[in-house]
Amino acid sequence: MRACIVGGGVIGGGWAARFLLNGWDVAIYDPDPEAERKIGEVLSNARRALPGLYDKAMPEEGRLTFHDDLSDAVAGAGWVQESVPERLDIKHRIHADLTRMAGPDAIIASSTSGFKPSELTAKGARTIVAHPFNPVYLLPLIELVGDPATCARAADILTGIGMKPLTLRKEIDAHIADRLLEAVWRESLWLIKDGICTTKELDDAIRFGFGLRWAQMGLFETYRVAGGEAGMKHFMAQFGPALEWPWTKLMDVPVFNDALVDLIAGQSDDQSGHMSIRQLERLRDDNLVGIMRALKHSGSGAGGAILTHEAQLPEPEASPLPVTARRRVPQSWTDYNGHMNETHYLEIASKASDRFMELIGCDAAYIKAGLSFFTAENHIQYLEEVHAGEMLSVTTQVLSYTGKKLQLFHTILRENGAVAATMETLLLHMDLNARRTALPPDDVVTRIEEFVAAQADLPRPEGAGRFVGQR
Amino acid sequence: MRACIVGGGVIGGGWAARFLLNGWDVAIYDPDPEAERKIGEVLSNARRALPGLYDKAMPEEGRLTFHDDLSDAVAGAGWVQESVPERLDIKHRIHADLTRMAGPDAIIASSTSGFKPSELTAKGARTIVAHPFNPVYLLPLIELVGDPATCARAADILTGIGMKPLTLRKEIDAHIADRLLEAVWRESLWLIKDGICTTKELDDAIRFGFGLRWAQMGLFETYRVAGGEAGMKHFMAQFGPALEWPWTKLMDVPVFNDALVDLIAGQSDDQSGHMSIRQLERLRDDNLVGIMRALKHSGSGAGGAILTHEAQLPEPEASPLPVTARRRVPQSWTDYNGHMNETHYLEIASKASDRFMELIGCDAAYIKAGLSFFTAENHIQYLEEVHAGEMLSVTTQVLSYTGKKLQLFHTILRENGAVAATMETLLLHMDLNARRTALPPDDVVTRIEEFVAAQADLPRPEGAGRFVGQR
Repeated sequence: MRACIVGGGVIGGGWAARFLLNGWDVAIYDPDPEAERKIGEVLSNARRALPGLYDKAMPEEGRLTFHDDLSDAVAGAGWVQESVPERLDIKHRIHADLTRMAGPDAIIASSTSGFKPSELTAKGARTIVAHPFNPVYLLPLIELVGDPATCARAADILTGIGMKPLTLRKEIDAHIADRLLEAVWRESLWLIKDGICTTKELDDAIRFGFGLRWAQMGLFETYRVAGGEAGMKHFMAQFGPALEWPWTKLMDVPVFNDALVDLIAGQSDDQSGHMSIRQLERLRDDNLVGIMRALKHSGSGAGGAILTHEAQLPEPEASPLPVTARRRVPQSWTDYNGHMNETHYLEIASKASDRFMELIGCDAAYIKAGLSFFTAENHIQYLEEVHAGEMLSVTTQVLSYTGKKLQLFHTILRENGAVAATMETLLLHMDLNARRTALPPDDVVTRIEEFVAAQADLPRPEGAGRFVGQR
Repeated sequence: MRACIVGGGVIGGGWAARFLLNGWDVAIYDPDPEAERKIGEVLSNARRALPGLYDKAMPEEGRLTFHDDLSDAVAGAGWVQESVPERLDIKHRIHADLTRMAGPDAIIASSTSGFKPSELTAKGARTIVAHPFNPVYLLPLIELVGDPATCARAADILTGIGMKPLTLRKEIDAHIADRLLEAVWRESLWLIKDGICTTKELDDAIRFGFGLRWAQMGLFETYRVAGGEAGMKHFMAQFGPALEWPWTKLMDVPVFNDALVDLIAGQSDDQSGHMSIRQLERLRDDNLVGIMRALKHSGSGAGGAILTHEAQLPEPEASPLPVTARRRVPQSWTDYNGHMNETHYLEIASKASDRFMELIGCDAAYIKAGLSFFTAENHIQYLEEVHAGEMLSVTTQVLSYTGKKLQLFHTILRENGAVAATMETLLLHMDLNARRTALPPDDVVTRIEEFVAAQADLPRPEGAGRFVGQR
């Protein structure tokens, strides 16, 4: 799979990172001599943040190439993404070239927020709008607008790289999200200009309040809840009439002059000038990853999109012990000592137990039917420090199995093969309705015994049976 | 400390819960015969969600009383909060009464979004606006408008119950956040009315995209980052001119008729009708707690407000062993077996180790100076299942101390005194710069030895020195 990225700024670089980290080869075309450096910076942010969303390893990165010739870059690409400046004459010229050069099955898409598909295709180009949001490598939303059959094919491809395609029912200037953003932006300029609040105070009005609601539910579902048992009609009856009596400023356009630019740029410096853009980007990314990881627990919004994508990521292979977990360490797993906190060694080993349960047939359906394993005891040895971004793998050996008791030994390995930690764990098979131990059914016993037999010749791992502080 | 809540709907109930769970007595005045039931439902949501924000226990709940007589409810209150329907004549009547009845130092505040302080005080009432956001017990933002000295006192009190006061520099219709919300609401109605998208699709355009950005940074800081190294002026230069060319619909008011109400209510039913309002509330609350807990890691936005509040919550008392942790179990700590996941037993025990380190002088400053303890080994026994919402405490016994090695035994207790789990842990004192073990300084040794001496007569705890699977 190969993607061609035309225009390598913040948006093009974000596209490149999204494809590359999902295993696609990426060919860049951008005449800017700085393109390679700029894309490298976006990629380094993406490598730092994106894998932290998943509790599984992402695919091997694809191959990144830079091309001076557009037709070289486009050759063999299944996806061609244009992210050049918002000038219609430039877009017309490039999309005419892309339509001529790209294979007949290639999707050709523009990142434009300013133009509708009917404008882009007016001179015969074969193009849809695929409008992403910054940072493209983390935010799932993509607005698709244009030919329905092409948009449907595009949606499948984008879902495969972890995105959330939203196909518009009709084209409209600025699509959906930017219309909402423009409305807020205009009103915000008035509030600043009139001295009601500063840029920092306005940001606080968002992030301490409705911003937290919108990260998970959006506007209408939030208001449905606010309407209470009486429902959406009741809410509309309350809030609707305010529209007949609009607050004046909302309807006017503020005069956009140097004084307004200086006022806002100055307040923004006061608010955020103590951090570089690079620091702000990393803070933003860490927070985005944290928020989206939190939403995985309920599966709401972006959390649901990540769960869907994660389920499609391949399970690691056995070699020779089963590899029961493989993942990169998120930034949020580090603590005040500058390394992965002790809790997350157990978190990854616990996921390894979950995976081993799946391997012996104790999957979600099995648990739903009322049987499961509970952990009775864990012993963890912390042998090496681990840092954010590292790839960890876990292998699992069966120490013993009798009746209701299954004893496992997880080895947590760093990328260089060093043992970062071990965890010995005792699991008891349970009847979830009675909340009592119970014998597992025969098919599960058979699968456990297959693992025991396969591992019969292995030595007992170092550290098994150890008590805390043993010499 | 006593708060009087006048009007006990969703907003008044949210205020009651916020004060009550922060240890204030709360007196309710609401002539609605259903008030007690309604407030009970809000309180039950709040008790389920709010304590999950904190890694410490909240204060003991205050006393909740209901009053038929307004002056009884107001008597002795330091804070009086009015949340009655948005009719100016009703507000005038109530605030005249409250001004007469309340003590001279009491803050009298209105939850109004529709009226400015100048309107509320036009007939002599002593009132400020303290405008909260639903759910009041979780969202930190409060807009304060009115007399500056009163707003400053109000801000201190609200910060003390975990809120984020935002004081407006000038009064304006609808304050700040609702002006932004109104702008988005109007534009959204157009998008639905014109068939560009459904309510669900519009919500997705928010929650898979800019909603995730706004939960942490707001508008201006997000755009500052988007502007890149060129900064805010560069961003303004790009985005600003679009204002001169406004998208038409933004400027018009859509006709608000039955057809529009039916269209939106019908789409909202399709989107969310499979869940009751109560289920949606709990989903919203679990997500809010998850998002805000994630933001604690960076301290951004709401995460910072929670950290500040948490630092003010009292540490538990020793009895006779030091109590090194005390907290309620968040909803997000439960797993597919319907109980607290094994990982979080270690998480709370790890916090207990952190607290014990503080008690022997190894606090944040000590770690910053380059010394700390690392965990070398943990052994956990899981003895009882624990459920979301339960209060857990941890006591810590020193098993042994020699040179660089400190061996602790944490006992995790349920509210009924039963032992839920134990964790034996071996800590090594480290030089953080050399990343090597090192002897602790004398003052730390002295404090450890004080604990050893104080616990000299205690028996060795059951389970200490145990290996996994030992009979």
